[in-house]
Amino acid sequence: MADGQVIEGVYLSDAFDLHALYGHALTPHADQIRLRHPHEIDDPEEIRFALCWRPADDAFLPYPNLRLANSIAAGVDSIINCPSLPAEALVARVRDEDQGDVMAGFAAWHVIWHHRNMRHHIVHEAKHEWARLIPSTTKPPRETPVGILGFGLMGRAIARAVTAMGFPVIAAVRNTPAEDVPGVRFESGEGAAQRVAEQAAILINVLPLTGETRGLLNLDFFNRMPEGAALIQLGRGEHLIEADLVRALDSGRIASASLDVFDVEPLPKEHPFWADERILVTPHQAGDCSPHTMAEQLVRAAQAVVAGEIPETVVDRSNGY
Amino acid sequence: MADGQVIEGVYLSDAFDLHALYGHALTPHADQIRLRHPHEIDDPEEIRFALCWRPADDAFLPYPNLRLANSIAAGVDSIINCPSLPAEALVARVRDEDQGDVMAGFAAWHVIWHHRNMRHHIVHEAKHEWARLIPSTTKPPRETPVGILGFGLMGRAIARAVTAMGFPVIAAVRNTPAEDVPGVRFESGEGAAQRVAEQAAILINVLPLTGETRGLLNLDFFNRMPEGAALIQLGRGEHLIEADLVRALDSGRIASASLDVFDVEPLPKEHPFWADERILVTPHQAGDCSPHTMAEQLVRAAQAVVAGEIPETVVDRSNGY
Ligand SMILES: NC(=O)c1ccc[n+]([C@@H]2O[C@H](COP(=O)([O-])OP(=O)(O)OC[C@H]3O[C@@H](n4cnc5c(N)ncnc54)[C@H](OP(=O)(O)O)[C@@H]3O)[C@@H](O)[C@H]2O)c1
Ligand SMILES: NC(=O)c1ccc[n+]([C@@H]2O[C@H](COP(=O)([O-])OP(=O)(O)OC[C@H]3O[C@@H](n4cnc5c(N)ncnc54)[C@H](OP(=O)(O)O)[C@@H]3O)[C@@H](O)[C@H]2O)c1
Repeated sequence: MADGQVIEGVYLSDAFDLHALYGHALTPHADQIRLRHPHEIDDPEEIRFALCWRPADDAFLPYPNLRLANSIAAGVDSIINCPSLPAEALVARVRDEDQGDVMAGFAAWHVIWHHRNMRHHIVHEAKHEWARLIPSTTKPPRETPVGILGFGLMGRAIARAVTAMGFPVIAAVRNTPAEDVPGVRFESGEGAAQRVAEQAAILINVLPLTGETRGLLNLDFFNRMPEGAALIQLGRGEHLIEADLVRALDSGRIASASLDVFDVEPLPKEHPFWADERILVTPHQAGDCSPHTMAEQLVRAAQAVVAGEIPETVVDRSNGY
Repeated sequence: MADGQVIEGVYLSDAFDLHALYGHALTPHADQIRLRHPHEIDDPEEIRFALCWRPADDAFLPYPNLRLANSIAAGVDSIINCPSLPAEALVARVRDEDQGDVMAGFAAWHVIWHHRNMRHHIVHEAKHEWARLIPSTTKPPRETPVGILGFGLMGRAIARAVTAMGFPVIAAVRNTPAEDVPGVRFESGEGAAQRVAEQAAILINVLPLTGETRGLLNLDFFNRMPEGAALIQLGRGEHLIEADLVRALDSGRIASASLDVFDVEPLPKEHPFWADERILVTPHQAGDCSPHTMAEQLVRAAQAVVAGEIPETVVDRSNGY
């Protein structure tokens, strides 16, 4: 800040100790912002912003002067859906190009996992068995369309990686982008996601969670997909009707799935997904953003709201993302 | 052929029954070429070409009029090194763009396997354990240089996929290409491979096997690599001194490796690589070429040599690739 005043903030999370995770990245900015846990705060009127991840329903209540709720991540659904979020607070996300790369690599890895049946190799390696797959059972990438739901920072980065491996991409968008994207064809408007599903041998979900996208991955949706398709679910657990995925796997409509996000996280030990060999479970690990980038963008967003400006990383609360 | 004559060929392999693997793809070309096993051939003077994969040392002896030895694959090392290969025979390979894509995806998969420690997720999934890795222990792709040895059809395709995931690539070449390749820096001439090794957090080998490249991946080479590097070996088994890899893994110089090719294939059941958790073994599966593309290029090459022309897919026997 021009006048050098430290802006006061609060950690709001029901899931993680955000200080333990991000304190090291925030320390270099100690002359610009200060963050404390709620129980460490004596005068809640001082608090101008919150760093959030799955805040409790009443988390925002004590802070009358809070103007910014900043996610630690790309997604803001748990903030926007928080009942105590003040009507006048701005909501911001992290926009991290490195995270785009990291998500792209993770998604590309799962595309090949399904396309080349890499589980087969892991299983046979464990048995010390040389077990070649017959290559002619695998279609070349050129003949294997990959669908992407959500063509924002993550979807675009994923499309770059997937097209570079030779797969044609079909992306669902609300409005077709003005410029061509090499190797990508678009489906837009009403029913775009469903039309992508109809064409995708491998489908990647990186939509934000909104009223429109909740429960999108349901039985009707799966039944549109080509027989034997693969699902790579990197969005939010609430996009997927878990029981419908099991039905689609049982019918053979979906042959295999990668799931990184779940209704309940951590996925409980007794959940049947763990033991299902058709499903690869990862622990919400597709792509965190860099703590340093988060810290820098948080400082800029906090300074902006205090100066009465709109942060660059703000999201549209009415859209939900 | 203009005069419609069927050109006679022979399958020469000590490793596979090439008729069983490729007969279906050759059938549509029955009015152009005919291939038989050696024991089915009564008049060996008729044989003008061979389809080969690891031919026996004396495999070529019976065929005085053979003018072409065509690989089923990209590599020709087992043909060029065959003592009975006639001095005047041309050697041809398959040049399959689909195979480039397939290799690129496979290599990209292994890059992420090491970069993101995907073995961790496979191991914990099997135990039904939600075990997040701390993201800050992983450098972003931008700060993780990937080295590629061999910048031909395979190396270029791999570079496209790896740069698209955000990794900077350093490639070893004999001569720096005339045109820039986005995201790729070159090391050329004497010692190029060693200079790439010095800079590569993850190193991919797709060199052809020649007198110069045999045994390149040895202890001296590994000791140049940054501490904790990863090796992805997709070239030929004979590029690697197996005992030296174990030494480099034991010293921590190399943290983990993916091996797709071996001195002895199939890798014997008792080989220690199978049980070594630092090594991921796959059964020479990185990228076969399409049988149909092979068959088409074989027909064209056979027609060319019979017409006294040089096939497009011919390799330079003196180079060895
Ligand atoms: N698993 C993980 O580790 C992880 C990591 C990062 C992100 N994610 C998930 O990925 C999501 C996307 O992240 P991002 O950074 O790419 O967000 P973003 O930049 O906001 O992009 C979201 C995209 O989705 C599109 N969209 C929204 N609603 C849509 C609908 N109903 N139909 C079609 N398209 C729709 C938007 O379209 P417009 O362009 O028209 O607005 C936008 O292009 C996050 O919200 C989060 O759920 C998960
Ligand atoms: N594991 C598998 O499934 C699999 C599948 C396909 C291929 N492969 C392996 O990959 C190899 C390459 O295939 P490709 O189709 O890419 O062959 P390619 O098109 O002939 O390319 C070979 C490249 O290596 C370069 N090279 C040769 N000797 C070199 C040296 N001493 N130092 C630096 N560069 C050198 C060549 O350089 P110039 O451009 O200067 O000639 C050329 O660019 C094959 O020979 C085979 O061993 C493995």
